[in-house]
Amino acid sequence: MATMQFRSKPFAAATSAFRAGTITPRDFLEDCLAAIAAREDEVHAFAALNLAGARHQADLASARWREGRPLSPIDGMPIGIKDVIETADMPTGMGSPLFEGTMTGRDAASVFALREAGAVIVGKTVTCEFAATEPGPTRNPHDLRRTPGGSSSGSAAAVGAGMLSAGLGTQVIGSIVRPASYCGCHGFKPTVGAINRGGSHDFNSQSAQGVLAASLADCWQVMREIARRAGGDPGCWPFQGPEEPPAARVPARLAFIETAGWAVATPAARQAIEALLDDLAGFGIAIGQRGSDPLVEDIERLIAGALPLSQALNAWESRWPLNLYAARAPEKLSLAMRSRLAMAEAMTPEVYAGNLARRQVVRDAYAQLRGRYDAVVTLAAPDVAPIGIESTGNPVFAVPGSMLGVPALSLPVFAIGGLPLNLQIMGFARDDADLFAVAGAIEGIIDPPV
Amino acid sequence: MATMQFRSKPFAAATSAFRAGTITPRDFLEDCLAAIAAREDEVHAFAALNLAGARHQADLASARWREGRPLSPIDGMPIGIKDVIETADMPTGMGSPLFEGTMTGRDAASVFALREAGAVIVGKTVTCEFAATEPGPTRNPHDLRRTPGGSSSGSAAAVGAGMLSAGLGTQVIGSIVRPASYCGCHGFKPTVGAINRGGSHDFNSQSAQGVLAASLADCWQVMREIARRAGGDPGCWPFQGPEEPPAARVPARLAFIETAGWAVATPAARQAIEALLDDLAGFGIAIGQRGSDPLVEDIERLIAGALPLSQALNAWESRWPLNLYAARAPEKLSLAMRSRLAMAEAMTPEVYAGNLARRQVVRDAYAQLRGRYDAVVTLAAPDVAPIGIESTGNPVFAVPGSMLGVPALSLPVFAIGGLPLNLQIMGFARDDADLFAVAGAIEGIIDPPV
Repeated sequence: MATMQFRSKPFAAATSAFRAGTITPRDFLEDCLAAIAAREDEVHAFAALNLAGARHQADLASARWREGRPLSPIDGMPIGIKDVIETADMPTGMGSPLFEGTMTGRDAASVFALREAGAVIVGKTVTCEFAATEPGPTRNPHDLRRTPGGSSSGSAAAVGAGMLSAGLGTQVIGSIVRPASYCGCHGFKPTVGAINRGGSHDFNSQSAQGVLAASLADCWQVMREIARRAGGDPGCWPFQGPEEPPAARVPARLAFIETAGWAVATPAARQAIEALLDDLAGFGIAIGQRGSDPLVEDIERLIAGALPLSQALNAWESRWPLNLYAARAPEKLSLAMRSRLAMAEAMTPEVYAGNLARRQVVRDAYAQLRGRYDAVVTLAAPDVAPIGIESTGNPVFAVPGSMLGVPALSLPVFAIGGLPLNLQIMGFARDDADLFAVAGAIEGIIDPPV
Repeated sequence: MATMQFRSKPFAAATSAFRAGTITPRDFLEDCLAAIAAREDEVHAFAALNLAGARHQADLASARWREGRPLSPIDGMPIGIKDVIETADMPTGMGSPLFEGTMTGRDAASVFALREAGAVIVGKTVTCEFAATEPGPTRNPHDLRRTPGGSSSGSAAAVGAGMLSAGLGTQVIGSIVRPASYCGCHGFKPTVGAINRGGSHDFNSQSAQGVLAASLADCWQVMREIARRAGGDPGCWPFQGPEEPPAARVPARLAFIETAGWAVATPAARQAIEALLDDLAGFGIAIGQRGSDPLVEDIERLIAGALPLSQALNAWESRWPLNLYAARAPEKLSLAMRSRLAMAEAMTPEVYAGNLARRQVVRDAYAQLRGRYDAVVTLAAPDVAPIGIESTGNPVFAVPGSMLGVPALSLPVFAIGGLPLNLQIMGFARDDADLFAVAGAIEGIIDPPV
């Protein structure tokens, strides 16, 4: 029953059935656990599982829905936690031999909030080492020869394989937008700082905690329910919005950016988004782009160096704790991490301050698009997931949104040779709710409700 | 030999002797350890000590100075670490029964940097519970009936008692500026974010890691050597400046602010700073203040509510991990912490976002003083340290600088009834080096070099 195993598990779509009593969150969980039982041995999405705990929590949620008093719209939602985010009941291994099996004894802020909202924490999902580039054992559920992407590899694969409704992720370069594309699920990276990262090994200045999920509504509700209870990072605008996902809003104008990724995107990927832009234009949406709008041209120029600039920022910001780890057991750090540390140790505070200023210039330029466009669209990746799991693929399309600190959605709308490829929609800082409204309209145009 | 025991231990002043070989860092450490042996039983500045480790490190530093190749200007400096900041070799108790004796197995970013610079980590200094208000056992070395202030109680008392050249501190309300005043040492709170807080239980958005030290030069060099090696918080301007403290620069104009503290300052405290302002005016420095400058009047009005606004921000930002602790063992949280959690749980992200916006308004108004004044002066506390150790005293003069996120120095220049009281000088965000230059000039005017 391969079809059953691949069936996506959108949770928001099931809550009316919970309310009606036709199915329960426990039933819903068992469907997920069946997919895990069927496919986890080959997908390797999980670093740890707590099945007994999940069943217990799902039973409690079932009783609450039955009594008409769910704790939140995600009460009973089966969710996975990226393994850089701490959980009291499971180890937090960070994809590193330095932390394998480490019990920290506490829940991260977002995990504590999820439990308060009634979510069912099924397991820890595989991450690249320290949410960076050294991959774990996860394989793409759509083709086991291929990478699921990273660094939120396990969350993407588990949601893509129908094992979970949602998985927490983090993104500092391309770690949500890209794996969502490779695994054909939704991915959301909020405005930087909008979701509290307390208790997560995720401290870089342009990193954000977000979610991979089976639907746009699931993305919304996971973020919203966490933010009600944990807020954002200290000093940062916290994710805000209504309990139900914002109503769809058809955009008047979209900017299309090629990014540095266009040069490496496959012809099929280019054709996929160009055809979509034609459809949107046919629907009356104005598309601005390089050639037609000098401001977009400016942005293209400024974001061309997003990857090396982001890497330089990340390196300096990671000097500690990498120096600590290197002093403890250098052989347990990947070559990539040792290189990052060496890069940091050759830097000075002055160089870092200069890089920060350069990033701010790009952010200020991008902010000029606000008001002129409703959102910015591009691909989520240059192609479908590449073959091989020794690399998590090219993050070139995702890194501009990370550097800009703006909200970004990865929407599973394309298919090439039977494999998924996502559209990316980027919004403006703090306008996360509006980005969901625009994305809802675009999904509606592509796949109109009956 | 009470006088010997009280002798301050400025380290920067000793380095020429190290270079000349007339004394060694080991000798210098032994002077500190003698003060600890003589007074620690009654002062209780330390939560933990590592004397063998300190002696070993001091011997290594002695050899390096002898060979003319110190690791940094603070190579061999005896320093204490506030007990919310992690150390690999000593427990990090956070002033809380929840963490008593907890070994985290790692050095915080600043501690790792200090060790790289050759500093001698003598011990962990007593902190209030989670760097807030519930006091530890520390007593004021100048009068054991009195509080040392808090929450950096142990660092202030140890430096004030001549046990250390410096101690790391943190300030989110008044936790460096006030205890420095009560204990008669120098205190420095940098621009918010300027010193890396990785590995410290110190996550509030207006909290900063700083230092209490035996001289202005010691403050400078501790901050500067940490920042070279650990930078600031991710995304924040990192502390920068020359290896030697900036040369004194006589200010042309100073703003004097009363703050909400003026109403509760004692007549003796008021007279002390008024006399100083007269002296400075006599030296040709223009003083602007309420009455003479409407802009200062605006600032006075805007900072009047600094304490409740800061408390509201801190509460929401502390919801996690306080909720985690309360779930684990509520009886091990102080009443103050349980109240803070209850305050947070009654708040929403929208309320927090509103408070952030209110703080930004005050910061923007204060920034208008830049260019118009070289620095802003006020008292560091309403009076000398009060009697009793059940409270750490009134933070009213320190909280504006915390809320504003600007650098603040607490300078031991007054004495009332034989007890110390400090002048506070506040600067402008990122102009930390300039604040040291101005402070150096003011110290020179008050106590001119022979």
